[in-house]
Amino acid sequence: MDKAKVYIEANKERFLNELFDLIRIPSVSAEAGRKPDMRRCAEYLAAALAEAGADRAEVMPTEGNPVVYAEKIVSPKARTVLIYGHYDVMPVDPRGEWRSDPFEPVVRDGRIWGRGADDDKGQLWMHAKAFEAMCATGTLPCNVKFMLEGEEEIGSPSLYGFCRQYKKLLKADVILVSDTSMLSMQTPSITCGLRGLAYMEVEVEGPNKDLHSGLFGGAVANPANVLARLVAQLTDAEGRVTIPGFYDDVRELTPAERRAFNRAPFSLAAYKKSLAIGDVEGEAGYTTLERTGVRPSLDVNGIWGGYTGEGTKTVIPSKASAKISMRLVPHQDYRKISKLFERHFRRIAPRSVKVTVKALHGGMPYVAPTDMPAYKAAEKAVEATFGRKPLPFYSGGSIPIISGFESILGIKSLLLGFGLAEDAIHSPNESFGLEQFDRGLETIPLFYKYFAEAK
Amino acid sequence: MDKAKVYIEANKERFLNELFDLIRIPSVSAEAGRKPDMRRCAEYLAAALAEAGADRAEVMPTEGNPVVYAEKIVSPKARTVLIYGHYDVMPVDPRGEWRSDPFEPVVRDGRIWGRGADDDKGQLWMHAKAFEAMCATGTLPCNVKFMLEGEEEIGSPSLYGFCRQYKKLLKADVILVSDTSMLSMQTPSITCGLRGLAYMEVEVEGPNKDLHSGLFGGAVANPANVLARLVAQLTDAEGRVTIPGFYDDVRELTPAERRAFNRAPFSLAAYKKSLAIGDVEGEAGYTTLERTGVRPSLDVNGIWGGYTGEGTKTVIPSKASAKISMRLVPHQDYRKISKLFERHFRRIAPRSVKVTVKALHGGMPYVAPTDMPAYKAAEKAVEATFGRKPLPFYSGGSIPIISGFESILGIKSLLLGFGLAEDAIHSPNESFGLEQFDRGLETIPLFYKYFAEAK
Repeated sequence: MDKAKVYIEANKERFLNELFDLIRIPSVSAEAGRKPDMRRCAEYLAAALAEAGADRAEVMPTEGNPVVYAEKIVSPKARTVLIYGHYDVMPVDPRGEWRSDPFEPVVRDGRIWGRGADDDKGQLWMHAKAFEAMCATGTLPCNVKFMLEGEEEIGSPSLYGFCRQYKKLLKADVILVSDTSMLSMQTPSITCGLRGLAYMEVEVEGPNKDLHSGLFGGAVANPANVLARLVAQLTDAEGRVTIPGFYDDVRELTPAERRAFNRAPFSLAAYKKSLAIGDVEGEAGYTTLERTGVRPSLDVNGIWGGYTGEGTKTVIPSKASAKISMRLVPHQDYRKISKLFERHFRRIAPRSVKVTVKALHGGMPYVAPTDMPAYKAAEKAVEATFGRKPLPFYSGGSIPIISGFESILGIKSLLLGFGLAEDAIHSPNESFGLEQFDRGLETIPLFYKYFAEAK
Repeated sequence: MDKAKVYIEANKERFLNELFDLIRIPSVSAEAGRKPDMRRCAEYLAAALAEAGADRAEVMPTEGNPVVYAEKIVSPKARTVLIYGHYDVMPVDPRGEWRSDPFEPVVRDGRIWGRGADDDKGQLWMHAKAFEAMCATGTLPCNVKFMLEGEEEIGSPSLYGFCRQYKKLLKADVILVSDTSMLSMQTPSITCGLRGLAYMEVEVEGPNKDLHSGLFGGAVANPANVLARLVAQLTDAEGRVTIPGFYDDVRELTPAERRAFNRAPFSLAAYKKSLAIGDVEGEAGYTTLERTGVRPSLDVNGIWGGYTGEGTKTVIPSKASAKISMRLVPHQDYRKISKLFERHFRRIAPRSVKVTVKALHGGMPYVAPTDMPAYKAAEKAVEATFGRKPLPFYSGGSIPIISGFESILGIKSLLLGFGLAEDAIHSPNESFGLEQFDRGLETIPLFYKYFAEAK
């Protein structure tokens, strides 16, 4: 392994310059006018992977942005690692808040600043360059496949079909993903749980037009008041979701699992201070880590109705609406939860209004077993480079495509991310620490080594 | 009285043409650029009242738009009627929905169409022309004063000060106001109650920035959920407002009063159909007429927070807000109610959020005693022209200046309006029926006669 490490040291400056070129391509998937940039970015990556040592590297079309596929088969008997990443990035708005051009990366205070510096160009580049180092030094112990998509930030609409079409090509023992964060450099962690998501929109309609609140107030159901009442009824005084059947499929942790789970370093005082809140609030009987990691939740993401301008307008709005999403945990199914939500919302609505309920988006929760060989190998590799055994971490977030991989390809994913909360992904002034980049580059070849050796 | 009636018949066409000229002046008080039109409108009215027979008629400055004051004193011993009206009109938006130019009045289907045709140019013009007819025919039995303001549609900000300054000048036995509606031409009515208003704005603030609903959902109080919960708690399952002390000063009607009150013609089926609602909703134990007429109410006039665009955004908003107003009945004081609201809202808010409560606007409820001489005189006059005794009607709306007259000038108002719901005041295609105009012109001189004769 020393050979790869020496290679990396000798070439690190070039690796960074190549990453900067990658960041310079404004591959914002949400912006329709960026199609040529998406294509250019995919071609850049395919060429880089071929150069790095892939036997095959190509830009494969989908219904949307292309997928970069590359592979190197060292032996039919060796284990196969499928690396998933994405080359598309989030929009940069509000642009005025960036301290430097989002598409002209700079190094400042030991960090790379630019859109995609972490998410996910920086993280996928560690894989490309670790791959190059192992190829160049003849130390690659596994077969490697790359699948880099250009639509992750818009929900991976084409990748499900791509996986179905190329199921055989994508055959692997594990999917390795670096698109998540660690707790800190001092407390490395591996994400082994992601919550699912059921995202709904509701509309409450009362009278057929806005009414004068003087002439009608008190006699006609006000859709905004009714909506508030219905939303309030979705959770109880204990912070539990009241939808019948909502918790039926939730896997309860054992006392031992809960103890292990709460061993992660966490300061409630620091948490409250960082958010400037007087108190936390959530499901009774669970800690803050449990509430976001292993318990489902229900949040209003947006609410609107009536007059929202300056001053006063005495109106009973004809309609009021809300976007309401639920984060789900194993083994909740977002399709079932969406149906339960809709049925319950309709049932609790009074006859004085009409309600419309739409399911806008959904994804399954995901859990990576901590006893699978890939997890054990990652644990060992991280311990070797960070000097500390990583904690299994249950993120409250969702990456719907990860459970898609499991259901379509039948392959588990390992979420070995090297991001940090301070990287400010999706926000202005995204960055990626040079130390994170270095440590990732060092960890990845070790993972291959331990994974190849694992029973 | 026949002489005045004959005079009116002979001059009606001119009366209408003059009213059309008045409507042609776009005196929209809410639009800053209309100052010259406001002045022109006031001058038109002062000249018209002088021409009609006033001894004194002038445009008097205020801090805002001027007040038109005019008077004719027939005898120091005679009763004095102070006519209040307003020459400003509402904006015309959305202009595209008007079937004819709002400031170029036309007669169509027996109605005058144009902004202000009813509210309040059409209604005040009946008073100007009835006054002219009585002056011209020597049949005016009372002293008459006119006070026509140009800021009613923006809350009469200057008129309170004007009344304080000219309290002596404005001395009268009753204030006669035609700025309300009747139940119908078949069921004439006199408005003898107006609700008061306490208009609040609340803001619920949670974390110091919008948060990712995956990473934080379930552990941090969501201001939109909390706002919904707080709003829901403001009323109970019986439709009663839960603010402690809210009902303390509410005058309960006697069983006899309630019976009389509910004698007004009202079809619940037609009401529901006209609003396209499945059911009405309100305070348990009261009828729809009582709920809007003599019971207080609480309505959300606007609510907003978080993401309200197309599609999905998984955000916990940092803040959520609502505009909430309460209609008040005798003897509730809006200042006291605003304080009770604020105290209660703060008390029920959890420690996980900060709340801000602002009182935006307020006005007192008003009741015209049905046993005062002016009410009796109006009742008799309406019965003579409509062939039916008018019903006392409690409107759910508010005209704050009316209770201002009582507290500043110490004079009761008589709300003898000739509008109808179909006049669509404040909306596109405002109109005023020619028959309403005629009937008003006929009723007003009779009111003077009976009021002068009353004990």
